[in-house]
Amino acid sequence: MGIHDYTIYHVLRRNARIHRNRTALVFEHERVTYGELVDRVESLSSGLVGAGVLKGDRVAVLSQNCLEYVYLYAAAAKLGAILLPINWRLNADEIAHVLSDGSPRILIVDSQYQSVVTPLLSAGSVSMECYGMDAATGPFRPFQDLARGGEAVPDGEPSDMDGWVIMHTAAVHGKARGAVLTHRGPLLVGSQLVNCFRLTHEDANMVMVPLFHAMGLIMTVSVMIAAGTNVIVSRFDVDRVLDKIAEERVTVFGEFAPILKSLLDRASETGRDLSSTRHVVGLDLPETIERYQRETGGTFWAAYGQSETSGLSTVAPYSEKPGSAGRPFHFTEVEIVDEAGNRTAPGTSGEIVTRGPMVFRGYWNLEQETAYTLRDGWHHTGDMGRLDEDGYLWFEGRAPEKELIKPGGENVYPAEVEKAILEHEAVKETVVIGVPDAKWGEAIKAVCVLEEGACLTGQELIDFVAGRIARYKKPQHVVFVAELPKTESGAADRKQVKAVHG
Amino acid sequence: MGIHDYTIYHVLRRNARIHRNRTALVFEHERVTYGELVDRVESLSSGLVGAGVLKGDRVAVLSQNCLEYVYLYAAAAKLGAILLPINWRLNADEIAHVLSDGSPRILIVDSQYQSVVTPLLSAGSVSMECYGMDAATGPFRPFQDLARGGEAVPDGEPSDMDGWVIMHTAAVHGKARGAVLTHRGPLLVGSQLVNCFRLTHEDANMVMVPLFHAMGLIMTVSVMIAAGTNVIVSRFDVDRVLDKIAEERVTVFGEFAPILKSLLDRASETGRDLSSTRHVVGLDLPETIERYQRETGGTFWAAYGQSETSGLSTVAPYSEKPGSAGRPFHFTEVEIVDEAGNRTAPGTSGEIVTRGPMVFRGYWNLEQETAYTLRDGWHHTGDMGRLDEDGYLWFEGRAPEKELIKPGGENVYPAEVEKAILEHEAVKETVVIGVPDAKWGEAIKAVCVLEEGACLTGQELIDFVAGRIARYKKPQHVVFVAELPKTESGAADRKQVKAVHG
Repeated sequence: MGIHDYTIYHVLRRNARIHRNRTALVFEHERVTYGELVDRVESLSSGLVGAGVLKGDRVAVLSQNCLEYVYLYAAAAKLGAILLPINWRLNADEIAHVLSDGSPRILIVDSQYQSVVTPLLSAGSVSMECYGMDAATGPFRPFQDLARGGEAVPDGEPSDMDGWVIMHTAAVHGKARGAVLTHRGPLLVGSQLVNCFRLTHEDANMVMVPLFHAMGLIMTVSVMIAAGTNVIVSRFDVDRVLDKIAEERVTVFGEFAPILKSLLDRASETGRDLSSTRHVVGLDLPETIERYQRETGGTFWAAYGQSETSGLSTVAPYSEKPGSAGRPFHFTEVEIVDEAGNRTAPGTSGEIVTRGPMVFRGYWNLEQETAYTLRDGWHHTGDMGRLDEDGYLWFEGRAPEKELIKPGGENVYPAEVEKAILEHEAVKETVVIGVPDAKWGEAIKAVCVLEEGACLTGQELIDFVAGRIARYKKPQHVVFVAELPKTESGAADRKQVKAVHG
Repeated sequence: MGIHDYTIYHVLRRNARIHRNRTALVFEHERVTYGELVDRVESLSSGLVGAGVLKGDRVAVLSQNCLEYVYLYAAAAKLGAILLPINWRLNADEIAHVLSDGSPRILIVDSQYQSVVTPLLSAGSVSMECYGMDAATGPFRPFQDLARGGEAVPDGEPSDMDGWVIMHTAAVHGKARGAVLTHRGPLLVGSQLVNCFRLTHEDANMVMVPLFHAMGLIMTVSVMIAAGTNVIVSRFDVDRVLDKIAEERVTVFGEFAPILKSLLDRASETGRDLSSTRHVVGLDLPETIERYQRETGGTFWAAYGQSETSGLSTVAPYSEKPGSAGRPFHFTEVEIVDEAGNRTAPGTSGEIVTRGPMVFRGYWNLEQETAYTLRDGWHHTGDMGRLDEDGYLWFEGRAPEKELIKPGGENVYPAEVEKAILEHEAVKETVVIGVPDAKWGEAIKAVCVLEEGACLTGQELIDFVAGRIARYKKPQHVVFVAELPKTESGAADRKQVKAVHG
């Protein structure tokens, strides 16, 4: 039912019809209208097909921001290919992991990072067709070979629930995991930002956060939806950005500390200002936020999000409730759950969970971790927080224990085992941890507090759990204790349990 | 993947978390908060399950606007049931058609229309469990039996692409067709209106257009998304509406002529005003629109839409381009196609086609008509119009020839046959019409103009078409003419062709 699906390509095609001659992109001395943008995306799409890229194939990009980066996002959407943007701050091993995990059909690298990739190619640790984004030397073919077109794009548009981008993100177990974002996720976040910031075709966004980052992507998308202008710089450079803000009358941007402070400091040193800006969204210190608002009259939007939620889940003007991370977007639900997975009352701390169309599809090639993260119909963020009576989210940092136990290579999450144990009426509290095991690498150990007057053996509990969840998830070891160490908030102190019983 | 799906139920659940004590609905002397609203929807959902309503079942409603009507929309969303709202202006035969076509599991009727339905039940022309919305007599059980709850709602939330509402709409062949709207269609239209009207939780919408109508539904939905207040009246009554607008400080509403003129006239007669209103969307006469804007300072939004597009496809402030129907929503593409299905240049008249997530799923029980209407990846509206250089739509009325030809009960659309005929290089122009046929009821006749110097027999053309599309769609009769009669715009004049050759 392609008639119902919408991707960034459709947004651009609509704009090319309605806002053909409006400036879509500015980069260095080049200006691209929406009409030109769609033409270039069409041509690049056909070039990608010519290079053998089929629907579902990954196209990796290792590059600082540039026009072609944006064309690639849109061309991938047209084809149903999946963009694999690579953090250019990674080292060679990490880049090799992303490439090997994402197994792209082609890789496009700008001149700055070709020297990192070339040894990987020579060593045979990765193998794919490579293109140079801005310059082509050695094994890199010219980008122009793609940009000038190739073969007709086959029928079969992607569904808006198909993967559009794989963003490799926080590694729970050492290796970065690829969060697969859908087409509609970033579009719906972008649409919400259009609403928050009252964006129109007269707005201009400063793209200085990397385009490999969800923040870079969704801010660009939001201004595209509004048919405004995205002003792109290759990377953050305080003077260049200040110049561009003034030249292009930039009205909005996304940022992370210390970008905003640098801009404010340098602007006041050099007699420039940020007075054209109306809205900034990001993460920053209260003093910087308050200074920005005081000096410019603009609004800073506090936010919470992850790559896994297409960038953002909650936003609100900082001044509405300073210190909070805002309130859920339309179509987004956010709740706080305790360790047993139950929704908590307002004011209670726990894990932040969320559901709605912005949630990612899952982790690339990690079915079990995906199923666990998305269990019970909610995305479990692994972040801690609380909701107040007015529905504002207060972020409290990463969950203290987000690890997997891996007995024999299987994935076992402590919370799942704990939930099963707590179904036994004799058990009052428990913490499940991983302990070294000569045979399985790791074994599962449950540290339990019994209800008053209750009586239970370790074997009885193990059998009980084995009857409730997959047998490989049952504890191998059970210890009963009079009480568990507690954190200040009154929750069981996992770190302490691990230190004592691990 | 229920985690990604969103329905009006999820919107309300979010609001109950964030805006628990805010007023969601006002009706007569009753005020309902978002917290209460969700509680009532939960209870009604479980009551519907108790009454045997399963996912996918239809729940018919024949009632003027009331609180329960809103609860039913939301409860249907929670269950994945499909609401079948019935136009209370229909006669008994037409109601019987909707009920027989939609075959609902239950029917809920308010006291005004029970006397219309009772004879249908006695005559056995329809048969289902019936409830009285506000009063229960005869065969109607009390609504309270549903509202007070029943059985637990089974797992399995609907997908947002599942049907939420069946709206019976313009009958092309005598009988109204049920347009199946998805969950996300009206929600995305509502979300766009939130953006256009800058809606917040401080807005209030006057629900005076019937809730069985797409306009009634989407305006209610938009204000719900913004967590504002919907002020409901059972039906349009000029004095009651003026009182409520003043009492509740209503800020927005949807309307069709002559509602706005009645309000303005009566307000000036009685010394009242519409000054709290900021935005009105609908269809009205230029003088009424201009008077509204002049007298209130509010903005009137011109629009184009159908039930099949979840109510609206294009909007813009009237003053931006008076006489136009506005521009496509974000995520909505609108084009104009000629009779051969090709996109036309700006300024050229043709059929309005549209695609995007607001497009309906199709016509209930009418697979062929659905496939035809949604052919080539676009919804063919059957309406005529043109787009100007700035992407504004100018509506030009219903397509002159929207009829089916029905040889032997099959559905054959002239345009499809014409397209096949025009693939023959000897044919320059053609119009296909239905002609009476003693055996098949109707037969297909092609009136053709040949290219200069070309030579072709009728049988050769019939064989050519039969090789291209299903054989039952081939013409039985072919006539060659020197030229076709034309309309002022230069298109073939079908009416004239039919008058001469029909």
